[in-house]
Amino acid sequence: MLEELKQAVFEANMELTARGVVIYTWGNVSGIDRSKGIIVIKPSGVEYDAMTPEDMVAVDLETGKTAEGKWKPSSDTKTHLELYRQFPELGGVTHTHSVNAVAFAQAGMDVPALGTTHADYFYGPVPCTRALTQEEVETDYEGNTGKVIVETLHDRQIEPLAVPGIVVRNHGPFTWGKDPAASVYHAVVLDTVADMAIKTLALNSGAAMPQYILDKHYMRKHGPNAYYGQK
Amino acid sequence: MLEELKQAVFEANMELTARGVVIYTWGNVSGIDRSKGIIVIKPSGVEYDAMTPEDMVAVDLETGKTAEGKWKPSSDTKTHLELYRQFPELGGVTHTHSVNAVAFAQAGMDVPALGTTHADYFYGPVPCTRALTQEEVETDYEGNTGKVIVETLHDRQIEPLAVPGIVVRNHGPFTWGKDPAASVYHAVVLDTVADMAIKTLALNSGAAMPQYILDKHYMRKHGPNAYYGQK
Amino acid sequence: MLEELKQAVFEANMELTARGVVIYTWGNVSGIDRSKGIIVIKPSGVEYDAMTPEDMVAVDLETGKTAEGKWKPSSDTKTHLELYRQFPELGGVTHTHSVNAVAFAQAGMDVPALGTTHADYFYGPVPCTRALTQEEVETDYEGNTGKVIVETLHDRQIEPLAVPGIVVRNHGPFTWGKDPAASVYHAVVLDTVADMAIKTLALNSGAAMPQYILDKHYMRKHGPNAYYGQK
Amino acid sequence: MLEELKQAVFEANMELTARGVVIYTWGNVSGIDRSKGIIVIKPSGVEYDAMTPEDMVAVDLETGKTAEGKWKPSSDTKTHLELYRQFPELGGVTHTHSVNAVAFAQAGMDVPALGTTHADYFYGPVPCTRALTQEEVETDYEGNTGKVIVETLHDRQIEPLAVPGIVVRNHGPFTWGKDPAASVYHAVVLDTVADMAIKTLALNSGAAMPQYILDKHYMRKHGPNAYYGQK
Repeated sequence: MLEELKQAVFEANMELTARGVVIYTWGNVSGIDRSKGIIVIKPSGVEYDAMTPEDMVAVDLETGKTAEGKWKPSSDTKTHLELYRQFPELGGVTHTHSVNAVAFAQAGMDVPALGTTHADYFYGPVPCTRALTQEEVETDYEGNTGKVIVETLHDRQIEPLAVPGIVVRNHGPFTWGKDPAASVYHAVVLDTVADMAIKTLALNSGAAMPQYILDKHYMRKHGPNAYYGQK
Repeated sequence: MLEELKQAVFEANMELTARGVVIYTWGNVSGIDRSKGIIVIKPSGVEYDAMTPEDMVAVDLETGKTAEGKWKPSSDTKTHLELYRQFPELGGVTHTHSVNAVAFAQAGMDVPALGTTHADYFYGPVPCTRALTQEEVETDYEGNTGKVIVETLHDRQIEPLAVPGIVVRNHGPFTWGKDPAASVYHAVVLDTVADMAIKTLALNSGAAMPQYILDKHYMRKHGPNAYYGQK
Repeated sequence: MLEELKQAVFEANMELTARGVVIYTWGNVSGIDRSKGIIVIKPSGVEYDAMTPEDMVAVDLETGKTAEGKWKPSSDTKTHLELYRQFPELGGVTHTHSVNAVAFAQAGMDVPALGTTHADYFYGPVPCTRALTQEEVETDYEGNTGKVIVETLHDRQIEPLAVPGIVVRNHGPFTWGKDPAASVYHAVVLDTVADMAIKTLALNSGAAMPQYILDKHYMRKHGPNAYYGQK
Repeated sequence: MLEELKQAVFEANMELTARGVVIYTWGNVSGIDRSKGIIVIKPSGVEYDAMTPEDMVAVDLETGKTAEGKWKPSSDTKTHLELYRQFPELGGVTHTHSVNAVAFAQAGMDVPALGTTHADYFYGPVPCTRALTQEEVETDYEGNTGKVIVETLHDRQIEPLAVPGIVVRNHGPFTWGKDPAASVYHAVVLDTVADMAIKTLALNSGAAMPQYILDKHYMRKHGPNAYYGQK
């Protein structure tokens, strides 16, 4: 009964490489069936060329145990699970090591909201988490990665779907959305706006955008009176 | 009777993605039939893969109302209309979020004329507009985007076809030309010279070009005695 | 009797776009038949997609007049002619607006010899010419571009085949070699080592290479006892 | 009997160009059959397009003499031999001039360990060797290149398979692994993490990663209790 979700998660994973934000096995996408309490995620360390929808792994949302599938799930599964548990509005989660977003993660900096490309998708800066403590790293690293994402959004009072991505300090981006495809879309957008931001800051280290432009662009696509796209 | 224009506008939109200056739906091209007082423009938020010439939307130049087509026109249509109304010499307009041109828009800087690649197409710096005021953003944002472009060209005494492009502060590039294909061509050139300029300024923040080289290169392609290309 | 040369020049021009150092019509390659005193060069402003070997234009080395062909030759033909006249060892010349080499031209800086990739092809920095004077630009611009290249090599006592390229101030790179293909090869190498140099200088503005490493790498490929490649 | 190894070395060399880390003939991969005391390596200066597995050259590990093959082996063969002799754990070695890794070589800087992408493959900074002395360059250059790599790993007490790559000062990267394919994989990873590091340092020149994150990521893939990938 999970065939449709496996197909969607499979296609979303393939899209990651097609869009150039992932090489080798450096990314993973998951999706969720909330009615069944099951997430479906890419297997760990399997090459994209050889993957089929049947290789996707089903994992129980509550227990974290494999429910279906011949492979081990992605080593980042516990991070995905933590996000799905804390944010019921999420339908898909993506993790990549895309170069430009990673640069902000490694620099320990938010991806600043400098223009309308950013504002069309992220309602404010894309935050960078604090570094995990040594204890957090040594005990349940992947679960704690999820927890520090949740903590960051909470401390900054960010609605997950209003800023559908984050960079984890010294690691890289996680993005999400209403379904697996949307989370991949946000991964590509995040890397692109990070590219723009690196070049903008090289030209003008004091670059900034007025709040009212951020408001306008985000709202014309996502607000109650949105008028971008077709009905 | 608009079939030919729809075909030209469709092809120009497809060229944007083929040239790598647009991903997803992040761009739009329009063209105009001045005898009919009609512009044809890409529909809003429709994926490039799925588009056909019939999806292009015809809009009345004067009223801004859809004259023909099943889709809503691009959300940037009012910006295009403003440019066509003020500059009768324009036959095509393009908007993109290409990375290098956006970097200048976000930095709030003109794209400086540093070499002959730039001078072959733009007779001077490609200006960056002022930011729109909060009132301009909140009332008729897209129309006011067109107005601030017109204001910038007017204040700087720039002939639109002599500098066929601009970057709108915190937003991105608009380019234009004698027809839709020319406006796309200028979008690609602008992103390339912006790439060159970012790298040049990284090497030498004081880089500049003598006016007489700018004059020479622009005039050998566009002046009364132009001798570049075939007759 | 020029069929073979036209074919070689045509293929060399196509290679420029295939290697990504030229978009649109932004480059030109020529070759020479010294026994006939004829150079063959790309036509001016003709799109690469539509070109065939028959479109190449034959020009008389001495008079600069078109000897054969239906098109006007490249607007840069006089620059090519000047190089062939002054340096009898040249068999091919290439001009591009490749982004990284142009950045050095616009910055007014030599491309410094920072590593063995550079040393394998260029025996020392790739020089940047002085800017042409206003008078040089206004009278015989393209001829004077050739003359300032010759002047620069002469003043710096550079053998053309030992440093088979240069960047013309505020303009871009010219490269050359024993035949058209070699001049294109050097155009691609020059853009690549310029890319490396931009990144190197961003990491360490004082980067440099000892002369003896430059000597070794250049000589193992090009010296009397060269041992790179097959015999 | 070397057919299998020749095939593996051939495929690894082709992968270098497919992954975009090598243009023209700017790279070479070798592999070893320890039971026979033979390495197999790419021929010198042969174009990738024209190569077949039969063009690979077999060289005696001890004497350095060609054991089988119609071509001269890569001019870097002595460097490869030195690494195989000193480190019995190596099964494949790769050399490239990939742009981002070369930038660090030319800058004379280690590629710093700034994030988990790096830590997944390299257990610490990827070292930059000292420059070879004039005498080392002039007498047995390629052998001494191998020796300075060995010296650097020794002085820094680095296990070769824990940090499977290095950048040679003013030259470029060498990488290695358990077989030819692994050494290519590490060449691609090294260039990618160098790209990330250049951008990270541009954003924050003081960027760094805590040791315990480096430990965690390296160990979850390579430690005794590794849990990344399938069993």
